Amino acid sequence: MKSEIIAVGSEMLTPWRQDTNSLYLTEKLNEIGVTVAFKTVVGDRRKDLVGAIRTALGRTDILALIGGLGPTEDDLTREAVAEALSLTLRRDATQVAALHARAATWRIPMPSNNLKQADVLEGAALLPNPNGSAPGQWLDTKFAAYRKLILLLPGPPGECRPLFDAECIPRLRAVLPVRSIARRTLRAAMIPESQADKLLAPIYTTYADVETTILANAGDIQLTLLCSKSNAADARQRVDELAGRLEEALEDWLYSSDGETLEQIVLYYLGLRQATLAVAESCTGGMVSERITSVPGSSRSFLGGVVVYSNELKTVFANVPPELIAQYGAVSSEVAKALANGIRLRAGATFGVGVTGIAGPTGGTELKPIGLVHIAVSDAQKTESVERIFRGDRTRIHQWATQQTLDLVRRRLR
Amino acid sequence: MKSEIIAVGSEMLTPWRQDTNSLYLTEKLNEIGVTVAFKTVVGDRRKDLVGAIRTALGRTDILALIGGLGPTEDDLTREAVAEALSLTLRRDATQVAALHARAATWRIPMPSNNLKQADVLEGAALLPNPNGSAPGQWLDTKFAAYRKLILLLPGPPGECRPLFDAECIPRLRAVLPVRSIARRTLRAAMIPESQADKLLAPIYTTYADVETTILANAGDIQLTLLCSKSNAADARQRVDELAGRLEEALEDWLYSSDGETLEQIVLYYLGLRQATLAVAESCTGGMVSERITSVPGSSRSFLGGVVVYSNELKTVFANVPPELIAQYGAVSSEVAKALANGIRLRAGATFGVGVTGIAGPTGGTELKPIGLVHIAVSDAQKTESVERIFRGDRTRIHQWATQQTLDLVRRRLR
Repeated sequence: MKSEIIAVGSEMLTPWRQDTNSLYLTEKLNEIGVTVAFKTVVGDRRKDLVGAIRTALGRTDILALIGGLGPTEDDLTREAVAEALSLTLRRDATQVAALHARAATWRIPMPSNNLKQADVLEGAALLPNPNGSAPGQWLDTKFAAYRKLILLLPGPPGECRPLFDAECIPRLRAVLPVRSIARRTLRAAMIPESQADKLLAPIYTTYADVETTILANAGDIQLTLLCSKSNAADARQRVDELAGRLEEALEDWLYSSDGETLEQIVLYYLGLRQATLAVAESCTGGMVSERITSVPGSSRSFLGGVVVYSNELKTVFANVPPELIAQYGAVSSEVAKALANGIRLRAGATFGVGVTGIAGPTGGTELKPIGLVHIAVSDAQKTESVERIFRGDRTRIHQWATQQTLDLVRRRLR
Repeated sequence: MKSEIIAVGSEMLTPWRQDTNSLYLTEKLNEIGVTVAFKTVVGDRRKDLVGAIRTALGRTDILALIGGLGPTEDDLTREAVAEALSLTLRRDATQVAALHARAATWRIPMPSNNLKQADVLEGAALLPNPNGSAPGQWLDTKFAAYRKLILLLPGPPGECRPLFDAECIPRLRAVLPVRSIARRTLRAAMIPESQADKLLAPIYTTYADVETTILANAGDIQLTLLCSKSNAADARQRVDELAGRLEEALEDWLYSSDGETLEQIVLYYLGLRQATLAVAESCTGGMVSERITSVPGSSRSFLGGVVVYSNELKTVFANVPPELIAQYGAVSSEVAKALANGIRLRAGATFGVGVTGIAGPTGGTELKPIGLVHIAVSDAQKTESVERIFRGDRTRIHQWATQQTLDLVRRRLR
């Protein structure tokens, strides 16, 4: 079954705002065996919208329209669907009463404009929207003699997504052939992209019935495996078999077999060992701490950290001897090690981490170029460091260095 | 002039990847007076792509196709445009030679598949792509008797964007009526969204010739004003006049008159005063430091910070007396002030900042609910704190608290 998602709203045709609901809907549609073949963004112009609806119905079986259900003059989705399919709109009395009741609860007068939210397409079912005033609509109809399913969904994500889950998915399931979906997400850190491709493509391309998607970010690769079968056990078996082969190929680059983030894995290992962590970072400016503390419950294993930009603070907070900085420079493996060791002792943590480098855009030299980073991990037994040179702008170097830091901690804890 | 952007690639029809090139192109197109009326994402299926191209040419004047110019079997944009417009493709000898030279430089054998990147649409000009192997194409043609401009652009952002700037913008300028664009971005912090709307809408709606876009994030509002006229001075005058009225209405919520970020403004004020800053954060987990250090050159004014999750580290790194924590609790204005003051003294900074709160998802009580945050700013004269309760999940509370912290520093420095 092929579907199209049309996001309605002129604001999504500016340089600053993107439709994101379609990503959510795509995931949910894929899970019930529906492919998204087209995504379209169209502004709040009736003629454009009518045309886009007709185009979509001419090329797909299921059309989800997101947005344009509100009370303003710019909200035209109901009217446009009616025009595209030559249907009438009737004003639903129950819905009108609900709108009045809603206004009364909030003690606000109701503009007459609001009532258009009670307009229902001929033959459509209203889909209750507990999070907003505009209900969704479900229309099982024909276009050019073919059966079409048309879904009208409110635009705000907090309304669109719960309504889609509660009202549309069960209706789609009832109409579509039964499919069972198995899914797995593997993640690997710091493997070069070209190497990952060379390792993995020969494996996953032999599994034509498993859809494999690879996403690469700074030092992070995420593989998502998706298999849809009429039988749940078959789907699960195929995904697990492929996952097993990919995991083997990824060796110790693999850090997650079921979608966990690198910071979650680091915290998981720390928890297992009942160990604690403290961080002294310079060039990453707090990003290491920030990623770790983004995980709920991180306070059990993460004691804290210091962001030591100035040389003085490296001494004040992580006991780095000023002579060491004078001798080797702030960006050196010696200082990274001293940061890791110093913060560990100062914080009373099991493990200490030190990061120092040059994020740019200035400050590089021939010997110490922009992107050079030294990272060290320390415990009571030993302190080890690595040196890396990352490419890209300041943000990119922050991201790569943070990822490398977390991966180094993971490898040490494993 | 109306345009459509078609992003080509099945990966953008998954739940994980979004087209972002179109945002860049939209900004650049708007600047030369071209509206984006539709955005479409289509997968690597020739039939779908041919249909989408015909639909686009039927409803807009300018069509930008992004992606599908590579050497693989999935790269079908050239072929699809040829089919949609019944044009032939010819293999360009110079381009073939360039591909061979490129392969030779990299000392890799060239698969014959690669040569399709030298295929040129009948009547099209090749657009050099210094950052990749597939050149772009520019086609000034007719479709159903109307003049149409068709742009073929490579998909990787690092190729698409420079090629669009260098090759397409000048060609479009030469063809389109001369328009001059004036633009301004105003930003305001911590103003409630509904209040911003009530204050601003009555003003900007009276400027029909200035396009005003409002983006709201956690505690941040960004207003972009755009005016396109045949005369540059007229456009500038209208934008500046509207900006002046909006700035007045925003009073001291306004922090930026030309698009600067809040962290840039804080660093700007610190630089003016030759002052330095140090931060002790608990519930924001490093996000305050991270935002500040994302600005190039921040090391001149930002000495560093500490992320003090545990009570012990609040004492070790920011001199917070353990008795104070025992008496008032870690989340209290007293501890926020002690953090601000302590970090200032420890770091030897002009200003110290302390943040403590409950980001959730657990740890809230009736008296101290999730979202409660105390923030303090300290200098040699005084230490002041505010209390806020933010709503949303952990990430959202991190973001709001960080924004509030930076805004508090801005107000203190102003």
